[in-house]
Amino acid sequence: MSIESVSSNKCFGGWHKRYAHESDLLNCKMQFAVYLPPVVSEGKSVPVVYWLSGLTCTDENFMQKAGAQRIAAELGVALVAPDTSPRGEGVADDENGAYDLGLGAGFYVNATEEPWARHYQMYDYIVSELPSLIEQYFPVTGQRAISGHSMGGHGALTIGLKNPGRYSSISAFSPISNPVNCPWGQKAFGAYLGDDKDAWQEHDASVLMARGGKIPVLVDQGESDNFLTDQLMPQALQQAAQSSGYPLDLRMQPGYDHSYFFIATFIEEHLRFHAEHF
Amino acid sequence: MSIESVSSNKCFGGWHKRYAHESDLLNCKMQFAVYLPPVVSEGKSVPVVYWLSGLTCTDENFMQKAGAQRIAAELGVALVAPDTSPRGEGVADDENGAYDLGLGAGFYVNATEEPWARHYQMYDYIVSELPSLIEQYFPVTGQRAISGHSMGGHGALTIGLKNPGRYSSISAFSPISNPVNCPWGQKAFGAYLGDDKDAWQEHDASVLMARGGKIPVLVDQGESDNFLTDQLMPQALQQAAQSSGYPLDLRMQPGYDHSYFFIATFIEEHLRFHAEHF
Repeated sequence: MSIESVSSNKCFGGWHKRYAHESDLLNCKMQFAVYLPPVVSEGKSVPVVYWLSGLTCTDENFMQKAGAQRIAAELGVALVAPDTSPRGEGVADDENGAYDLGLGAGFYVNATEEPWARHYQMYDYIVSELPSLIEQYFPVTGQRAISGHSMGGHGALTIGLKNPGRYSSISAFSPISNPVNCPWGQKAFGAYLGDDKDAWQEHDASVLMARGGKIPVLVDQGESDNFLTDQLMPQALQQAAQSSGYPLDLRMQPGYDHSYFFIATFIEEHLRFHAEHF
Repeated sequence: MSIESVSSNKCFGGWHKRYAHESDLLNCKMQFAVYLPPVVSEGKSVPVVYWLSGLTCTDENFMQKAGAQRIAAELGVALVAPDTSPRGEGVADDENGAYDLGLGAGFYVNATEEPWARHYQMYDYIVSELPSLIEQYFPVTGQRAISGHSMGGHGALTIGLKNPGRYSSISAFSPISNPVNCPWGQKAFGAYLGDDKDAWQEHDASVLMARGGKIPVLVDQGESDNFLTDQLMPQALQQAAQSSGYPLDLRMQPGYDHSYFFIATFIEEHLRFHAEHF
């Protein structure tokens, strides 16, 4: 596999770079962004925090809005932000152009149903194909952490919990914590995974956390988030952690909403949390 | 004059808020953004840094991409980001929809020519109408500083230099430093101000700086900025400062480009510079 440079910007002494590549797994061309901290220019290899974005986002939102590069530069950590779905001509989309299914809404699962299965293999893309590319082309160690927002918080939690050997810590902002019980999750899982509810369970953070585990997890949730009650359901995650004794640090943040203004406020604490556990 | 709330987001313990108002001066409805640091909730009044954005921007770009709220929260400074031109139905635009004239390209002058004069009075809007609104509706002191990027760097420099009693310090990123001698400036000034080149001089930072003055000015310019040679011309500003003994700190920054990744890297130093001079 090869990667093709799209753009490059110096930022906090390091480099924000975007790349395109043909994905054998997703059968389309994908883009991702990477931030390389200044120590990389001195020949040092660095750990990676993978960031999974929410509905409608691309690789750009986090890199432009979170203000994460400042802290990554200081900590000597790389950031990688993939797109949120397969893209391009011929890739299936919701027939009504809904924001919460199809393009921009891959939900970090491997679709088994038509018309999605040929391209929507975002779980394997995040777990395997993308890290292989990153570890082939950039000076990174094998140390990985995973974080994300909303749909991407769901992605970070489920992928991290299912792959404890691959990630040293997990964090999330406003994650969809119990997708099998909320409208966003039911719509997406029904479309991508079909009627088999057992398959859904394998991609539900609360179900997975109830099974126990040891990787440290930090979650921030704004109390003024419009999606809190109907879609995000952090209390399900809290209950799951209590039942299994999982080391979950769930912090409810008064006054904060679902936006990047919330993420920007707390991203420093998330990156320091991940850096501690590398 | 009244203002109408558009949105509100908690950010670094303070509040990012957007407002709309009918502008008597611009004869249209305008929007602006304000960031109020946490000390405002404790009843404290704070100084204001006005931020003027570049071509194509609205009140949103700076607030979403610069990461300035973190430092403003720490320093106890408010940030105000206006739009870059009048807006709305009936407001003249370039007939070809060019990005560098008309909507999103007010250039911070008072237009005297048709079809622009009725709405394009951005100089007076920034100097008078907007601060009057801010000082009426928000708990701010009379202390003001002004900063901006590209076209907005031109705006910050020219407005600050022409109004030394109103601003305690001026800063700019990648300003259009000598608009009377570059294509962007010539196109905009020709359209808005007509053929009278004397009128142009009154809105050229290098011309104004050559006349001398005392307000501290900080300018950052990326050396890898695509617009450096043809449009920005910081050397004209440097020469003007040398000829008049103006206290200009112009810093050329190797490797940085024209993007918000550059602004985000150095905005902390700009805000600390302004805070020192309040």
